[in-house]
Amino acid sequence: MNANNTGQKNAHVVWQVMSITRDERERLQGHRSFMVWFTGLSGSGKSTMIYAVEEQLYRLGYRTFALDGDHVRRGLCADLGFSHSDRSENIRRVGEAAKLLTQAGVIVLAAFISPFKADRQKVRNLMAAGDFIEVFCDCPLAVCEARDVKGLYKKAREGEIRDFTGISSPYEKPDHPDLVLETAKKSVEECTGMVMAKIKSRLQFADLGKADLAEL
Amino acid sequence: MNANNTGQKNAHVVWQVMSITRDERERLQGHRSFMVWFTGLSGSGKSTMIYAVEEQLYRLGYRTFALDGDHVRRGLCADLGFSHSDRSENIRRVGEAAKLLTQAGVIVLAAFISPFKADRQKVRNLMAAGDFIEVFCDCPLAVCEARDVKGLYKKAREGEIRDFTGISSPYEKPDHPDLVLETAKKSVEECTGMVMAKIKSRLQFADLGKADLAEL
Repeated sequence: MNANNTGQKNAHVVWQVMSITRDERERLQGHRSFMVWFTGLSGSGKSTMIYAVEEQLYRLGYRTFALDGDHVRRGLCADLGFSHSDRSENIRRVGEAAKLLTQAGVIVLAAFISPFKADRQKVRNLMAAGDFIEVFCDCPLAVCEARDVKGLYKKAREGEIRDFTGISSPYEKPDHPDLVLETAKKSVEECTGMVMAKIKSRLQFADLGKADLAEL
Repeated sequence: MNANNTGQKNAHVVWQVMSITRDERERLQGHRSFMVWFTGLSGSGKSTMIYAVEEQLYRLGYRTFALDGDHVRRGLCADLGFSHSDRSENIRRVGEAAKLLTQAGVIVLAAFISPFKADRQKVRNLMAAGDFIEVFCDCPLAVCEARDVKGLYKKAREGEIRDFTGISSPYEKPDHPDLVLETAKKSVEECTGMVMAKIKSRLQFADLGKADLAEL
């Protein structure tokens, strides 16, 4: 516990500010917290991945939160559009909110197109070294467009949606992602296994036995 | 678990979006999540209260997060000042971020001057009924100013700080707060006890024995 005597006093009482540290939180729940950031084109499998990974972690007893555009575009970032500057501000706010979640001891699984390198780097810079794990969902545009789960590519091609990543707005691939998932070639299970293997060393399974560890 | 088949497919795989529900999260950790919002003048004891309540909850095994201006003014809301519209946007973003934390299963203890009724009401509206508990730290301006922990009142009186709540910007008291703490008359321990008593019924001590409950 950090005790900072703020000097707040009244007649009888010293008012102190005490803060539970992140380490104490992590000890309470028996695991560490960090952020796994999935970037890639619309339709590249980012949301599928965060929910698949979350399900595995949940079953093993980890506190997680899967965060994607739908969570914030109607809420925290409801005032933002899709211009370059609005996209940057969107990712900045998401990064800050995700940082708060990790400070609260939660493992954050974030799925955002986040097309610009500089914006992703800023989120990485918010976090301690190693607490930001960048996963590139590498899926050819043609495959994403053929899937077109939400019908957005069609609308973008028809000019109904402006500034659409991959069509009318650029996507800057990561130079050195922590992990690449070729989601057009691999199954959800394979990709989930790759993510779990990647984050295994960061989880520090303090609250789980060797049997659980062996399952991964 | 909510399963939504998004229709994402490649040659061999159906990509599905699965989401852990808030109920499942709460069951995992053995308690519910909600937001306790402390409002009041600068120096009225809000930050002291969130850390005091957090310490008690932490010792009882609850997942909490204490959120105050220092967390967000340098981060999520670093681009905002103290004009009426910036203060409103500040509280809006804090409310949205706090909502994400509660969705992640965390009990949020928030300390913000939040001087405008309409802004506090908007945060309440984000949450399910009963999941927003408004605590008014009711402390006379003269007492807050005499404490002047951060030296801000002095600067406000000297005109160094503009739009300072209570001096050059209004504070709208809550009409029907869920709890009033007279922090100039009561000790931190008394006030903490009052908050704990108020939230007791919302905690649902599923993971704690009667002995723990009796301690409150």
